[in-house]
Order: sequence, then C-alpha cells, then structure tokens
Amino acid sequence: MPATSRARQRELKRQAVLQTAAQLFNERGFHQTSLDDIAERLHVTKPTLYYYVKSKDDILLECVRSALELMKSEINAARQSGGRALDQLVSCIRIYSDIVTQDFGKCVIRIGEEPLPPPIQKELRRLKAGIDHEFRRLIADGVQEGTIAPCDPKIAAFVLAGALSWIGRWYREDGKLSSGQIAEQATHFLLNGILAR
Amino acid sequence: MPATSRARQRELKRQAVLQTAAQLFNERGFHQTSLDDIAERLHVTKPTLYYYVKSKDDILLECVRSALELMKSEINAARQSGGRALDQLVSCIRIYSDIVTQDFGKCVIRIGEEPLPPPIQKELRRLKAGIDHEFRRLIADGVQEGTIAPCDPKIAAFVLAGALSWIGRWYREDGKLSSGQIAEQATHFLLNGILAR
Repeated sequence: MPATSRARQRELKRQAVLQTAAQLFNERGFHQTSLDDIAERLHVTKPTLYYYVKSKDDILLECVRSALELMKSEINAARQSGGRALDQLVSCIRIYSDIVTQDFGKCVIRIGEEPLPPPIQKELRRLKAGIDHEFRRLIADGVQEGTIAPCDPKIAAFVLAGALSWIGRWYREDGKLSSGQIAEQATHFLLNGILAR
Repeated sequence: MPATSRARQRELKRQAVLQTAAQLFNERGFHQTSLDDIAERLHVTKPTLYYYVKSKDDILLECVRSALELMKSEINAARQSGGRALDQLVSCIRIYSDIVTQDFGKCVIRIGEEPLPPPIQKELRRLKAGIDHEFRRLIADGVQEGTIAPCDPKIAAFVLAGALSWIGRWYREDGKLSSGQIAEQATHFLLNGILAR
C-alpha cells in the first residue's frame, strides 16, 4: 500500500477509535470506561489501540477538541456569510445544538475537560471561551442593529449556552424528536420566550 | 452534655463536613478531591471525618440529595401557595436558580450522580425526574390558563432547566452580579426571549 493511503487508513481507524470511545464515555462516564472496554467494543486488542492513541486522557482530549474546533469553524463560517447579526446568531444556535447531539459534542457536555491535566484544561477552556465570545459579540451586534432587545450580552450568551448545552445531556437518538426538530423548538423558545402574547 | 444536644452538635459538624467537601468537589472535581483534602481543609484528622461520614461517595450522595430535596420541597411550597401557574413557574425558576448557586446545588450540576453506584444514581435520578415533572406540569397548566404560549412542555422544561442549571457552572460568588440579579435576568430571557419587539 502506498504511504499516503496507509496514512489515510490509519487516520480513519483512529477516528473510529475516538468515536467508539466517545460513545462509551457518554454512556458510562469517563472514569467508568477503561481502555479495555474500548478495545473490546472495537474487537481489537489493547496493543492495537495504542497504535492509534496514547492514553485515555489523549482520547478525551481529541474528542473534546474535535467538537470545539468544529463548532468554532462552523461559527466562523456563519459569521463570514454576513447578513443580520440576528440571522447569524440563529445559525450559530443551530450549529451549537447540532454538535451537542453528536458523539464528540456530547463528550464536551457530559464529560468536559475536568478529568484532564491542568495545561490541557486551559487549552480547552480557551477554545470554549472563544465560542462564548462569538455568541456575546453577535448578541451585542444584534442589540446595535435593533433586532435583539437591549440586554447584558454576557448573561444572554450564558442562558443560550446553558439551554443548548443541556440538549447534549438529555437528547437520545431513539427519542421521538430528531435533533433538527429539537434545535428548531429550542431556537423558538430562546428567541421568543415562553409567554403567550 | 445531654444526649440531644450532643446529637445536635454532631449534626452541625456533619453539615460542616458536607459543606466543605462540596466546596472542594466544585473547585477541583470529585475525582481530584480526597478525604485527606477534606480533612485538611477542616483542620481535623481523617479518623475524625469517619465519625461523621462513611465515605467520599456517601458525602457526594448527601450533598446532591440535600440540594434536590430542598428544591423539591420549595417547589412544592410554591405550588401549594396557589395562584396562576405562570406565577408559580416564575417562583420555581427563582428557586432553581438560587439553589444551583449554592454549594450543594453546584454539586448537582458540576459533579452529579455519575460517580456513584447505579442504585444510588437511580434514586437521585428519580428525585431529578420529580422536579422536571413539576416544571412540565406548571408549563402545561400555564398553556391551559393562556399565560404560556402553546408548546411542548417537555422541551420547554428542558430549555428552562438547561439555562438555569448552567448558572451553577459559571456563577462566581466574587462576580459582578449577585445570584438574585442573575436569577432575575435569566427569568426575563426565558419568559420573553431575546428578540426586540
């Protein structure tokens, strides 16, 4: 096999390891999942696992980082597409909601960076802060353009992030609503509130 | 010392152990906190600690259970005071928000029941489900009475719980806003949404 194809094969298999590990972390918790459990679900030996990943910490880091970087790059794309801040915000709400229903995104919400060593926690928190910053900026811009009611963008961004992050805790693939339907309803509540008018 | 007074003393000291442990869990994480750390912060020996609690698991269980039972009883009181479902819901939002900014409430959000053995997890999840159920019922009643816009009460309750639970993650005692001010702003967003009108 040529070297590039081999590298691609390896990367694909590495992704499968991360995905399976993320599923197990989300089902059982990080501390309750061992590398043996991950190897078992993948039907490989533990030495094979070590060919793709360094440690359980390394796996969690990659899962959380992947989700946060995907979110960051999709938010950047939404912002660069221009238009009203409100519409960009709605796109970002949708992006956030979608990602927290996926395996890596659920890891961000259900496990987080706490089991990892402090320098890595710091890196992941910086990524999270960057995403929070984009939400605050869009809200502030929306207030400026008159589409969002005057508010403290920091608290508004926390309320949005909380409502959306929580989806990663309760969403079930086998539930009645699709992730898209949930995103739609959550967006409606966050924009309009629950009061009758 | 008479026996009843001794029992009261013991209970007060036990509460101090739980409170200090909760603070450490919230600061460092459950798995990163040892019984030695708790004893050290309380300036007592580990054997003294065992006079008040059985284990680290036992401490976490008591912290989480205290917060959930306090929430449940305050929600019941709010419901029994009667009046419009919307007003009862606003009281419950305020109760939820207050409790997640306290040490035991933060434990519910930051640590949760996951480190505990399955039968205990089940008990704590039942308590949580009971609280969720009250929120859903109040929302459904609010739709009936015409104060809350027609919606899926289950999703609406999740959106509220997410936004409010998240406060337990980001709230800092030394921050600019008091827990009361945060509760007020969060309530406003959840009732009215963020759109300008």
